[in-house]
Amino acid sequence: MIGAGRVAQVHLGNLKQMKDIKVKTICDIFAEDSWKERFSVENVTKEAADIFNDPEIDAVFICTPTDTHTDLTIQAANAGKHIFCEKPVGTEEASILDAYHAVLANNVKFQTGFNRRFDKSHEKVKLEAASQAIGERHILKITSRDPEPPNIDYVKRSGGIFMDMMIHDFDMARFMMDDEVEEVFTYGNSLVDPEIGAAGDVDTAIVSLKFKNGAMGVIDNSRKAVYGYDQRIEVFGEKGMLQSLNQPDYHVNRYTAQSVEAGTPKYFFLERYQDAFFNEEVAFFDSIRQDQPTKCSFKDGIMAIRIAEAAKKSLETGEKVAVNLEIK
Amino acid sequence: MIGAGRVAQVHLGNLKQMKDIKVKTICDIFAEDSWKERFSVENVTKEAADIFNDPEIDAVFICTPTDTHTDLTIQAANAGKHIFCEKPVGTEEASILDAYHAVLANNVKFQTGFNRRFDKSHEKVKLEAASQAIGERHILKITSRDPEPPNIDYVKRSGGIFMDMMIHDFDMARFMMDDEVEEVFTYGNSLVDPEIGAAGDVDTAIVSLKFKNGAMGVIDNSRKAVYGYDQRIEVFGEKGMLQSLNQPDYHVNRYTAQSVEAGTPKYFFLERYQDAFFNEEVAFFDSIRQDQPTKCSFKDGIMAIRIAEAAKKSLETGEKVAVNLEIK
Amino acid sequence: MIGAGRVAQVHLGNLKQMKDIKVKTICDIFAEDSWKERFSVENVTKEAADIFNDPEIDAVFICTPTDTHTDLTIQAANAGKHIFCEKPVGTEEASILDAYHAVLANNVKFQTGFNRRFDKSHEKVKLEAASQAIGERHILKITSRDPEPPNIDYVKRSGGIFMDMMIHDFDMARFMMDDEVEEVFTYGNSLVDPEIGAAGDVDTAIVSLKFKNGAMGVIDNSRKAVYGYDQRIEVFGEKGMLQSLNQPDYHVNRYTAQSVEAGTPKYFFLERYQDAFFNEEVAFFDSIRQDQPTKCSFKDGIMAIRIAEAAKKSLETGEKVAVNLEIK
Amino acid sequence: MIGAGRVAQVHLGNLKQMKDIKVKTICDIFAEDSWKERFSVENVTKEAADIFNDPEIDAVFICTPTDTHTDLTIQAANAGKHIFCEKPVGTEEASILDAYHAVLANNVKFQTGFNRRFDKSHEKVKLEAASQAIGERHILKITSRDPEPPNIDYVKRSGGIFMDMMIHDFDMARFMMDDEVEEVFTYGNSLVDPEIGAAGDVDTAIVSLKFKNGAMGVIDNSRKAVYGYDQRIEVFGEKGMLQSLNQPDYHVNRYTAQSVEAGTPKYFFLERYQDAFFNEEVAFFDSIRQDQPTKCSFKDGIMAIRIAEAAKKSLETGEKVAVNLEIK
Repeated sequence: MIGAGRVAQVHLGNLKQMKDIKVKTICDIFAEDSWKERFSVENVTKEAADIFNDPEIDAVFICTPTDTHTDLTIQAANAGKHIFCEKPVGTEEASILDAYHAVLANNVKFQTGFNRRFDKSHEKVKLEAASQAIGERHILKITSRDPEPPNIDYVKRSGGIFMDMMIHDFDMARFMMDDEVEEVFTYGNSLVDPEIGAAGDVDTAIVSLKFKNGAMGVIDNSRKAVYGYDQRIEVFGEKGMLQSLNQPDYHVNRYTAQSVEAGTPKYFFLERYQDAFFNEEVAFFDSIRQDQPTKCSFKDGIMAIRIAEAAKKSLETGEKVAVNLEIK
Repeated sequence: MIGAGRVAQVHLGNLKQMKDIKVKTICDIFAEDSWKERFSVENVTKEAADIFNDPEIDAVFICTPTDTHTDLTIQAANAGKHIFCEKPVGTEEASILDAYHAVLANNVKFQTGFNRRFDKSHEKVKLEAASQAIGERHILKITSRDPEPPNIDYVKRSGGIFMDMMIHDFDMARFMMDDEVEEVFTYGNSLVDPEIGAAGDVDTAIVSLKFKNGAMGVIDNSRKAVYGYDQRIEVFGEKGMLQSLNQPDYHVNRYTAQSVEAGTPKYFFLERYQDAFFNEEVAFFDSIRQDQPTKCSFKDGIMAIRIAEAAKKSLETGEKVAVNLEIK
Repeated sequence: MIGAGRVAQVHLGNLKQMKDIKVKTICDIFAEDSWKERFSVENVTKEAADIFNDPEIDAVFICTPTDTHTDLTIQAANAGKHIFCEKPVGTEEASILDAYHAVLANNVKFQTGFNRRFDKSHEKVKLEAASQAIGERHILKITSRDPEPPNIDYVKRSGGIFMDMMIHDFDMARFMMDDEVEEVFTYGNSLVDPEIGAAGDVDTAIVSLKFKNGAMGVIDNSRKAVYGYDQRIEVFGEKGMLQSLNQPDYHVNRYTAQSVEAGTPKYFFLERYQDAFFNEEVAFFDSIRQDQPTKCSFKDGIMAIRIAEAAKKSLETGEKVAVNLEIK
Repeated sequence: MIGAGRVAQVHLGNLKQMKDIKVKTICDIFAEDSWKERFSVENVTKEAADIFNDPEIDAVFICTPTDTHTDLTIQAANAGKHIFCEKPVGTEEASILDAYHAVLANNVKFQTGFNRRFDKSHEKVKLEAASQAIGERHILKITSRDPEPPNIDYVKRSGGIFMDMMIHDFDMARFMMDDEVEEVFTYGNSLVDPEIGAAGDVDTAIVSLKFKNGAMGVIDNSRKAVYGYDQRIEVFGEKGMLQSLNQPDYHVNRYTAQSVEAGTPKYFFLERYQDAFFNEEVAFFDSIRQDQPTKCSFKDGIMAIRIAEAAKKSLETGEKVAVNLEIK
């Protein structure tokens, strides 16, 4: 485990529950010896090399800040370790491609951490759509809204709403439609918090998508939905429609003289996607054990970044922007 | 139209919209000449005989107080008029059977005014259940709650909750299960308004039902559901379950930080069963025109009364009570 | 009543049920004498002038083909008749403005036939949104899909999907947000039927909207939703979200070993918006009687056309298009 | 841990995830040495005394067949161990009271394993009801249906549907109404499987409940709901209604030309009540640590048995049966 922040701790908690999986070493620049006990691991280190050089270690989780991803990926790949890498897979095109080629050259598994692909309900929609349950797919709609904005410091170093938040939806778009997004058009504004606008970012955005095979889609994001974490996906097609719905915190109805009150959506992403995190880890290990391609490839990680960059450019230019689909 | 009270006016309003149907005469003990214009009818009279003796009139609607139903039915039948009679079809066993035989002897159509049979959603459940969509039927559940209790004067002359209110549910029970209720057990209490208890009635009741073919059921009634007119039916069987659900006043959701609020059920029975009233009238005329049995027979009217009487007796005795299924 | 096609007949059926409203004359180029009986009216004519010259007539319904709307409006206004005009209010900018000024000059009421404003659930969302129930409005989402495409002949003379179908949604957008749409961007394609594409139209479209006050929205249309007439509106804001939901044909759930099946949305627009048509007519007469502005003005009719034109131009040019908001 | 069957293994799995909780010894008549590794415990034994005599052990889970519960409870209590005991707490009145008094005399904690009290949604309904959110409680409705019947051998030694299955609902009834059930009336039949009837049991039952303070209720059970594990609770009162709803396996809707299909309820009780099992264990340990009464007392365990016995007797006699509310 490289990195020991919030998402790393989610992975650590899950891995501990898995038989046959042992987390041997945690690497973090703030590592302390006391972590051995805290996380029940054998080694704690500040040097990633201690992991790459350890012949006992088969796979690494890269959960560090984004700008370190490609460098760590290259080292891990060269050391022959399988790689689970948090999103985004990198920051700059050139180094991302270097990392991509290092993974190919060393023939190690690489899974991008788009956990939503492993949510049971989203996955069901994908599987039914892919099996033509609704015929040809015509329209994709994704609504994705956070319960509250991150603090402004995080916003400033987040890479912006498209790279930090909507990147998940761009991946969902490709996943749900089994097709590439070839063009986007963006409207965005800072309606939630003017400070976000002052920081050069937006907190509310609608991105229209044009898919390669002629279908179209739309994603809307807001940094603040007071009613909770709003996560809905709709795939509309020739023969019907599939929806992945919000999941209420309580399955309770209260009838009063004024209204029928149901539970609000689960509020926090860790609660909403608790199982998804677990499932993506299991899938990663399965792909290693069975020597199968991972279910969320390096290419998937790259394409989501490309769409995020196009969406951002569209906001800046006020024009539709083509997505670079080629990976050399 | 014999009687000009609330339900009579519902029928009048609907009949006016039907092509080929003309309401010629209204009879009511409080009849006034001004009603000709008010209801757009040719004649207004205090004498039912004016209707029975009018050769132009083919059918009558009996919407008078219950204790007059059998007498009017007998006169109408003897005059060869087809009869639509509001529920309950009568008050005393002997006169009810007299009326029943008069209808048979004169070979006129007779439809009991159990409007709920003609509600589109209830009817769909019935049709699917009858077509074995859920296999053998095992359990019936009916919830039926009024938005507010009638005034205490009405309660006193209503015949009690079983004859006035739950009688609809007893009919639904037979309708939904295509089977006779042969035994009942009742719990009841006055929880809504002690005055109702003081008047010798209950305002809250649960009646368990035993069907002839071995299935079972339960009906719960309350005179006061603050959230509106609660009308739910559930048929559970070997291969599944069918539910007729409440119908909201507004198809609107409001998400707030506290809850997701949906619309309450339609509040008033005339609004909830607006279409059902219309449909039952159309069905009545269709059965006359096509010389087919009515969709809610005299026998249906009698059996619901028998169950209501048994339910009342069970409450009084604290024992289960068999329903008299024989009609001589 | 000028015009006697499908929507005219809807109005005729409703008006017949209203006390104090009398439809005196029907004008249509195919008028036949037998219509007097068929529609229960006094006069049938092929000459609209017979209506404009009749001093007994207070108001006219213009339900003719769109290209006659402005000319009839001008004649009616000059004759001092109040005007209910089906959408779109006209085809060409210049004549529309002429008609607009004729209405202003003659001080007659003019209501544009955007019936959806008068749907009880949509209206509730509007009223709550306007009363700040969800604070500032940030995102509007409208999904509007027909159950099946019109025949290709109709498509060819319809003015295209934006002017014929999405125009309702453009009006809803302004209505729900109490704000002007100042810019649009369109993706569209013919995915349902290649013949529609061959006719120069699209059958599937997503239009992104930019509102004057900074909010944003998106409308998606399809000419064919096999599950019925899909009509959903969502307004998301600072303090919550309001949704107007689809309304099922049956309020029935069927539970089987495979799934829980609920009713599909009402299939046909006349059934879905039955009450809305009735309510818009009542509102029109109320605004005349009470000398109040109509609830859907001429300007509302014009602005929806302007947005439709911009959406079409965006599709053609591949660029965002500003909406002309000025009415001179 | 005494017993190592299905439910014991559920507890073992959960306890392993809790910090500060260590399962030291497993006792089972079929115990094997290999279980040490399998369950990661220090000791495996066939002698419960090894547990009772171990001063390091603070608390025991009794998960053995019902007829051993009271004897083990007495030994555990006399050894000063806190006790978590699966339901039913015993089989015979006299020994149950002996065990009850042993627990009191030794002042150890005792929690009855009615896991449903710890389901988040059920608990929310209880808390709101208890806080008078719907005013006085008038009607309780519980539907509880298994996805499929147990095998006939299990049925024969299960104690019958009331003691084995509906006992959970009897506990829920007392929990939800904060009141005692003082009388019951039962209808039951074997409609699912004639073999169950031949074994002297029923597979379908409706039990009406009379509460001490005047409210009433009804529970329906079926051994076979093809659509899954049906678990619904409804509390209706003076000022509204609370419902704990079924929880779908997938939060997915599929719209087709025929229907809108949603997910069926979670199929298996271990999946449906996964969190409830975990929560009841945490609550047990909390009550020990904080020296507070357990949230499901020995008395709760006894009263549910008393109601089950009365329900069974009502079925046998065809009469309502009073519940013995006194515990001496």
